[in-house]
Amino acid sequence: MRKEMTRLIELDREVGLLGHIQALLGWDQETYMPAKAVDERSEQLAYIEGLAHDRLVAPEIGDLLAALGSTASNPSGDASLAERERAYLRVLRREYDKATKLPSDLVAELARVASLSQAAWVEARERSDFPAFAPHLERIIELKKRQAACLGSGTNPYDSLLDLFEPGSTEASMTEVFAHLRADLVSLLGKIRSRPQVDDSFLHRPCPADRQAAISEWLLGLLSYDRGRGRLDTVAHPFTTTLGVDDIRITTRYLDNYFPSGLFSTLHEAGHALYELGISPGPEFSRTRLHDAASMAVHESQSRMWENMVGRSATFWKGNYARLATLAGDSLQGLGLEAFVMAINKVEPSLIRTEADEVSYGLHVILRFELESSLISGSLAVKDLPAAWNAKMKDLLGVQPPDDARGCLQDVHWSAGLFGYFPSYALGNLYAAQFWSVMKRELPDIDARIESGDLGSVLGWLGRNIHQPGTTYLPGELLQRVTGGSLDQGHFVAYLNEKYSRIYGF
Amino acid sequence: MRKEMTRLIELDREVGLLGHIQALLGWDQETYMPAKAVDERSEQLAYIEGLAHDRLVAPEIGDLLAALGSTASNPSGDASLAERERAYLRVLRREYDKATKLPSDLVAELARVASLSQAAWVEARERSDFPAFAPHLERIIELKKRQAACLGSGTNPYDSLLDLFEPGSTEASMTEVFAHLRADLVSLLGKIRSRPQVDDSFLHRPCPADRQAAISEWLLGLLSYDRGRGRLDTVAHPFTTTLGVDDIRITTRYLDNYFPSGLFSTLHEAGHALYELGISPGPEFSRTRLHDAASMAVHESQSRMWENMVGRSATFWKGNYARLATLAGDSLQGLGLEAFVMAINKVEPSLIRTEADEVSYGLHVILRFELESSLISGSLAVKDLPAAWNAKMKDLLGVQPPDDARGCLQDVHWSAGLFGYFPSYALGNLYAAQFWSVMKRELPDIDARIESGDLGSVLGWLGRNIHQPGTTYLPGELLQRVTGGSLDQGHFVAYLNEKYSRIYGF
Repeated sequence: MRKEMTRLIELDREVGLLGHIQALLGWDQETYMPAKAVDERSEQLAYIEGLAHDRLVAPEIGDLLAALGSTASNPSGDASLAERERAYLRVLRREYDKATKLPSDLVAELARVASLSQAAWVEARERSDFPAFAPHLERIIELKKRQAACLGSGTNPYDSLLDLFEPGSTEASMTEVFAHLRADLVSLLGKIRSRPQVDDSFLHRPCPADRQAAISEWLLGLLSYDRGRGRLDTVAHPFTTTLGVDDIRITTRYLDNYFPSGLFSTLHEAGHALYELGISPGPEFSRTRLHDAASMAVHESQSRMWENMVGRSATFWKGNYARLATLAGDSLQGLGLEAFVMAINKVEPSLIRTEADEVSYGLHVILRFELESSLISGSLAVKDLPAAWNAKMKDLLGVQPPDDARGCLQDVHWSAGLFGYFPSYALGNLYAAQFWSVMKRELPDIDARIESGDLGSVLGWLGRNIHQPGTTYLPGELLQRVTGGSLDQGHFVAYLNEKYSRIYGF
Repeated sequence: MRKEMTRLIELDREVGLLGHIQALLGWDQETYMPAKAVDERSEQLAYIEGLAHDRLVAPEIGDLLAALGSTASNPSGDASLAERERAYLRVLRREYDKATKLPSDLVAELARVASLSQAAWVEARERSDFPAFAPHLERIIELKKRQAACLGSGTNPYDSLLDLFEPGSTEASMTEVFAHLRADLVSLLGKIRSRPQVDDSFLHRPCPADRQAAISEWLLGLLSYDRGRGRLDTVAHPFTTTLGVDDIRITTRYLDNYFPSGLFSTLHEAGHALYELGISPGPEFSRTRLHDAASMAVHESQSRMWENMVGRSATFWKGNYARLATLAGDSLQGLGLEAFVMAINKVEPSLIRTEADEVSYGLHVILRFELESSLISGSLAVKDLPAAWNAKMKDLLGVQPPDDARGCLQDVHWSAGLFGYFPSYALGNLYAAQFWSVMKRELPDIDARIESGDLGSVLGWLGRNIHQPGTTYLPGELLQRVTGGSLDQGHFVAYLNEKYSRIYGF
């Protein structure tokens, strides 16, 4: 390995180490930090983040990238380098460019405005007062356009913002995929709504937190989540975080009157953690940028796969429901497998994305995609957002928000400056279904294994194909390598059709 | 405030912020970190420690100190500065000098050798093999002498090491105080041993951890430990740590068959935390070096005061034992106040310092002081340490270690390079008793308050007199301000005599 590469890796690892420290500061804040410590903790977080940024934009990194032949037009560097080294340079170049293209006054202004906007959003949502939030949103959008102009990837501002979360994706490609998906989901939803509806009221029986914790423990055991390299804690809003390559922690929450929330949250977060735990770019590139997830959407494909394609499948529960019923105690007393599987898959369009079923979920995301791309392009004015939101809600999901708090003020994302982020939530489902179809072909007995609770084969296949390479491939390249094709929403739609035609009998 | 002072405070706060982040990394390692994360965590800790050191020794700090008139011979700087500013410069100058006087190769070598020595010590203690540890100890002592020579405070090398933990103390002053204390404790121990001994066997009844946790909660409530600024967790070896000025966490442990261990550990650590929580040098100096504890020994005075002078007093339990008995359940079934107070104050010289009663404890410390000062001066050779240890054990405590594991290999301190640290453990008791005698004079009804469980008056007095100033005063100056005198072991000896004459009836 050339000495410039060795030095680059050393500098990159320093940035990574700071990122892991930042993750601990964040994890502790959500789990165990005493309330009054929040002011100094914010400073600690900002300080470490600033340090990591300074280290990343250090001229030495630029010089080393250049010395290895990596430029904006040839990010992978000299052709003589090993393949993995070229992959590494490409990802590091990308991060370096993203960090250096933004003037520091813009970064600071975005952070400042996002912080104020989030506070304003909290108040505006409480009072369902969109006009109070509108000027903040306008300011955020203005800054996001400036950010996009600085980044300058793709052919329009929204492309640059999308690329931050899903490298290589564009508004045009998303529009095409989502147009098909939109039509298919609306049609499927129509079929489902024409059928007798599912009763899931028994899922709201009380279930004590210690029983729910035992259910989580059991599931994490089936998933082979290594407690030597992670842990589970409870928080208000579950998340997964990486504090070290051998320290990937998950969180969940237990609602007294709806135990599936905690159960599926645990599976979802464990899916994220299993991905991070499985990344293994080899010792030379351990703890470098190659040791990261390929993208937000690939990450989401893993969490949604374990949560939905395993965790909400009839196959899995066929062999494992008896154990769940024992652990859940009174909550599932007298209820059979079939009623349970139907209940956890009940489709019911609602106002809120975060609690949406598998069919509605994509429509919620498409709604945000359509609106946020219009806000960025300027074809939709902020003042017209509530009306546009409500009209699309009616169109896509057939529901009508009674107020803006449950309408266009429901998500924190835009107030935090997160534009281009939402599509990843839906892309994750598409990737998951497309990966899953290959896995089923390559592992013909996988259903029998899942039914028996042997999830090791699923994890092994995901590890070899999805997890191990980290950021070696762009998401589109990974998809091509694993499935031999490009993004195709058809797999996800077929998965939904097969599943829901059984449940709703059409 | 002069702009140099403002800038100095800014730089100092950055070092402090890094120290708090380091504390979080350490706290998490002891409480919740998954086992396999330890390697990267060590790197994270070393990285942040290195960063803090680099920031502290930055030439800019030296220049600012000089610009404000602070020099080695006039640490407090220009006479025109405000009193608190001069106090601040003095403490910062001290830290800056300590950090800059040591060549970085010596610091690195000390860290390396200490790490190896600790590993060697663990093995040597397991096999009770002092000769295997001896070369490591020799190497450590050699490096400590080099360190002392670089620091060059006081008139001999051990003075320099003492001064690291107890600013202003010297071997000569310690020798004098400890000589008196030694004689008084040996004499008191003799009297106690001539009397009928106390039965404390019932304290070893099993007590479930959740009952012990409830006892801790109750005590922390009485002590007004603010959960908004701290928390309690369980660990193998209890400690207190400062993760922010509003984030002072304590830890404890619950032994199944000896609940007083957890109870007194909680009180001890809460004493440390109450001190840190009470430091308040004013907004201008918040989160600077002035916002630290005055010394290790002053810290220990606070923990030992709550643990022993309150927590093992007949006065406190007179009004609070009934509640404890309820919380402890079967463990104290049928046992009265008097038997309990006698049992928790049982004096029984043993081989181990960490579990020693209030009388033996000081003798354990004096033994280490006498031996380590001789090791540093060279009057005791490492090879002769086991024999010297055993002879002193017999002399001071009347016990004979059956092997070196329970003799001179019992403490981790020397293997970690901690010479000059032990005396603080005993000094803490002396300070505590001397402070206590003033408090009793100033608050005549304090016994009645303690008996009624109203500990706010004790805390208020400590806050005003001991906690608030932080490092504004050297320990000796603080003692002078609060008590009007210099260090006098007589207060502690009088306290012990009064207490144990009642318990043992002499």
